[in-house]
Formats: sequence, structure tokens, C-alpha cells
Amino acid sequence: MSFPERVKIVEVGPRDGLQNESGIVPAEIKVRLIEMLADAGLSVIECGAFVSPRWVPQMATSAEVFTLIEQRDGVSYPMLVPNLKGLELALEAGVREVALFAAASETFSQKNTNCSIAESIDRFNAVIDRAQSAGLRIRGYISCVLGCPYEGEVSFDTVAMIARELYAKGCYEISLGDTIGVGTAGKARDLVELVARDVPVAKLAAHFHDTYGQALANIHAVMQSGVAVVDSSVAGLGGCPYAQGATGNVATEDVVYMLDGMGIETGVDMDKLLEAGRFISDFLGREPVSRAATALLRKKAG
Amino acid sequence: MSFPERVKIVEVGPRDGLQNESGIVPAEIKVRLIEMLADAGLSVIECGAFVSPRWVPQMATSAEVFTLIEQRDGVSYPMLVPNLKGLELALEAGVREVALFAAASETFSQKNTNCSIAESIDRFNAVIDRAQSAGLRIRGYISCVLGCPYEGEVSFDTVAMIARELYAKGCYEISLGDTIGVGTAGKARDLVELVARDVPVAKLAAHFHDTYGQALANIHAVMQSGVAVVDSSVAGLGGCPYAQGATGNVATEDVVYMLDGMGIETGVDMDKLLEAGRFISDFLGREPVSRAATALLRKKAG
Repeated sequence: MSFPERVKIVEVGPRDGLQNESGIVPAEIKVRLIEMLADAGLSVIECGAFVSPRWVPQMATSAEVFTLIEQRDGVSYPMLVPNLKGLELALEAGVREVALFAAASETFSQKNTNCSIAESIDRFNAVIDRAQSAGLRIRGYISCVLGCPYEGEVSFDTVAMIARELYAKGCYEISLGDTIGVGTAGKARDLVELVARDVPVAKLAAHFHDTYGQALANIHAVMQSGVAVVDSSVAGLGGCPYAQGATGNVATEDVVYMLDGMGIETGVDMDKLLEAGRFISDFLGREPVSRAATALLRKKAG
Repeated sequence: MSFPERVKIVEVGPRDGLQNESGIVPAEIKVRLIEMLADAGLSVIECGAFVSPRWVPQMATSAEVFTLIEQRDGVSYPMLVPNLKGLELALEAGVREVALFAAASETFSQKNTNCSIAESIDRFNAVIDRAQSAGLRIRGYISCVLGCPYEGEVSFDTVAMIARELYAKGCYEISLGDTIGVGTAGKARDLVELVARDVPVAKLAAHFHDTYGQALANIHAVMQSGVAVVDSSVAGLGGCPYAQGATGNVATEDVVYMLDGMGIETGVDMDKLLEAGRFISDFLGREPVSRAATALLRKKAG
């Protein structure tokens, strides 16, 4: 069994996490969180999204957040942009890296972005052209790769086709999103191996949600196929705080705990990560949705 | 990567799970739970423990529970016994299978059973002799195999030595317990591979707690070394209901969800398992401590 020596963690808590929280988090809290995450050694921190504040009010402060962050060398601060309009706002704010997304299910694509998969790839192309001419780095997300809330099963061939398109077009990394957390280890690995026929596995990221408790097992599985980039969310941000187990992104603390234990380097300092998780959880008035964080914080408290 | 085609699940909820619950569960509720678990297809259900009711009041009804169960062919109903006295009570109740335990850490052994590891093996021997002469099947537990709450690191050689003793003495299966859930995938697999030099891997069980969220990843890892027996607890019984993430045994629902998804046979019907989990969780007045159960029950509720 061979595992990567080093895994890059892409922290998505301030964006994918907070966008699902019901209460609005002020810009200065997000900025403090992002700086604590950078302090903890995270080298990629997705900070927000230039989407309509009407649809995602939680992201309305994204430009303000971005301009307030004290940026550090060696850390990138990508922003999600759904379309050309979002990209223009990102450029105005001075963003250097953007993330785009497409869904692997027709129904999800229609409901989420109001267009077919083919149309979403066309839109992508226009955004990528503009982003590239402005010299931005571009990351691609594919959602629903292991299941769709409307269609159930999703075609792995469709996922592979989208990944190929995004990579060919110039995305430096393709993040495979199990948006509803239904995937299991064998399927996650089969998918990665199929997609890796067209896109170098070093360019693939695992973006797994822990809704069914499977995320770490799935990460454990796909690392064995060479995946060495993992998206995660500090304190498991994005889960529903009122229903135990209803989690969103896998918690960064759980991932780092596993990787530390396996001797896989991440560059992340667990103590500082716990502080960042506690900071935002305290603000939200709840416990971190992370078993490792809960256990470690309890141990520290004695 | 090769995985077992079939995994046997040893359900420990009515014992390892309930013994950590604060409120007393009446015998008739336990009996109903055990029968629902058998209905769901579980073939080994640990039903209780013949321990001092002064120390573990939750287990005081064990003899009553055992005699009230409507036993089925093909299902075994082991009982934990800590010593000869417990074994005699088990024999009086008509038990056909018992489980014994030793700890892999000296301090834990002293605090938990008031004797050294060597002394606990001697006690074991006496209990095993008596149990064998009465024709009982005997399962052995080793606790703290991946870490001790007092000593931290535990010697894998000690774990292997105890496993060898228990197996040589006639235990039909040795369950390796990560009692405090600190283990990670690489170490879990290393341990299994060391122990399997002395005890056939088919005779080893993974008994992992999910305190740090690692249990499924660890099970995923050790299955790749040939482990095909997994201990788990319906609805994650044994966790602390008031602190999210403070879990005990890995939830049977989470394990079955993973194995179903991987095409590994368990013989367990998920719908009936969910019913059993909901039954006992309703009685305890809380949600199941299982992400898969929570997600699946929410989906059913629409």
C-alpha cells in the first residue's frame, strides 16, 4: 500500500462552510478566521464567493473580506466565481486565483445553475478565457461526483469528461466533490482511477462531505490511488448545528489527525488549527462538528 | 487492493454500548433491542456482562435479559465475564458463549482490573479452563491496543503476546480494541500485520471506537490486511449524548453503509438495523450517534 508523503489541504471553511451557515458572519470575523488558518500552516484558503448576495447572503462580504486579509507569501486565497459577472467582481477586488464549478448531474446542474452540463462547460470556457487573460490561476470543482440528490447514481464517464475539459482548458487542479456525502471507499477509488486516465492524478483533489460518516475512509482509499490534495473545512463548518451527524465538508481537524497519525506531512499545526476551529465555533455558539477537535479540546481541558 | 468478500459484524451495543449510558435501561427494552438486531440479520450480539452491579449497574439485568431473549438458530449471544465468579453466573443463566478481556497497558490493567497484565492472563487461564470444560465458546478482547489513556503509546509486542496467549489457550477470536479511539489507519494496519504473524488474521476482529472520527478509515485499512470481523454498536451506543463527537464504539450503521457500498456482504438489512437504532435512541431520548443513520433517517422522513 503506498500513500503520498505529503498532502496539500485546501481549506474551504470560510467559503463552502460558512455559506451554509444560517447566521451572517461579519467580515472581520471571517478575516480573523482566515488569518488564524494561515497561521496554522494552511497554504490554500478559499475565502469567499462572488455570487449574488440575493441567493447567498453569507457571501455578500467577499470583496471586503478579501481586501482586509493581510496576505502572506506562500498562501493562496482563491475565490469562487460562478460566471463572468462574478469574475469581474473578483478582478476588481484584486483576486489572484478563482475557482469555478460544474455539476456531474443534469438535474443538479439545471437546479443549481439553471443550465445543462454542456452549457455550464461553455460558460466555463468564457470565464476561463477571461481569467487566463488576466493572469489568474483557476481551480475547477465538479460537484455530485458520487451521487446526486435528484438523480441518485451519477455517470463516472460524465465526471471524467468534465474533468478532461476543465483540465484541457487550463484548470491547474480538479476537485472531485461528493457534495451529498453518499460515496463509499470503493466507488471513490474507482472514480479517481477512471478520471486519472485523462487527468494526472497529482492534479486531482478529494472534496468529500461527511454526511454519511464516510469521508475519512474515502480519503484513505483515494490516497492509495495517488490523490494528494484534500479539501476540508475547519470545525466541520457547513454542517447543520442542530442535528448531530448532519455534516457538510469533512472537518480539517479529522483529516489532519489521520494524516499526522499516518506520518503524512501537511504543514498544518494541529494546536493552531484547533484554535481557529474554536474561534469560529465560539462565534457560531456551538461545538466544532469534528470528532478529533472535540476529543482533543476535551483532552486539553483536562 | 483486496478486501474480504464478506465481513462478520459483532454487535456490541447492548453490552459495550449500554454499559456506558447513564440511565438504566430495563431488561425488556434490552431484550426487544437484541431481538430487533437479530431480525436485522446480525449473527453475533453481545448481550450483557456478568460483572458486579455495584461497579456497572447498567449490567445488573444481564441474567434476566439472557433468559428472556427468544434465541434463534444461527445467532450467538455472548456475555462478557471478567472472572470465575462472572463465569459461574453466566453458566447458571445458560450462556453458551463468553467474552473475556485483558488490557495491553499495565496502568490500564491495574486501574480497570486491579492486576498486572501477567496476572490478568493467569486469571484468564483459570476462566478459560472452566469455560472450556463446560463446553462454552470463548472470545478474547484486548483493550487499549492503539493507545492508553494513562500511558499514551502501547507496545505492539505486548498486544501480540496477549493475542498469542489467548489464541493458544483456545479463544476462537481475538478482538483488538482501540478503547479510546486514538488510533489511525497506518498504525491499525501495522498492528494487525504484527499480530497476524502469530494468530491467523481470520481470527482477528477490529474493535474500534470513533472518538477521533477515525474508526471507518481504520476498518478500511485493516480489511486490506485480511481482517473480516468488525465489532460495532447500533446507533453508536456508548457515546456521550450531550457532546457531539464524543462517541464510543463505531456505529453499526456507519460500518454497514460502508460495506454495502463496497459490495462486501454482511447479511445485515439496513432498514431493519435503522429501526433497531431508532428504537433504542427513542428510548434514550436522543438522536443516533451515527452519521449514516442520521442521514438515512432524514432521507426517509423526506
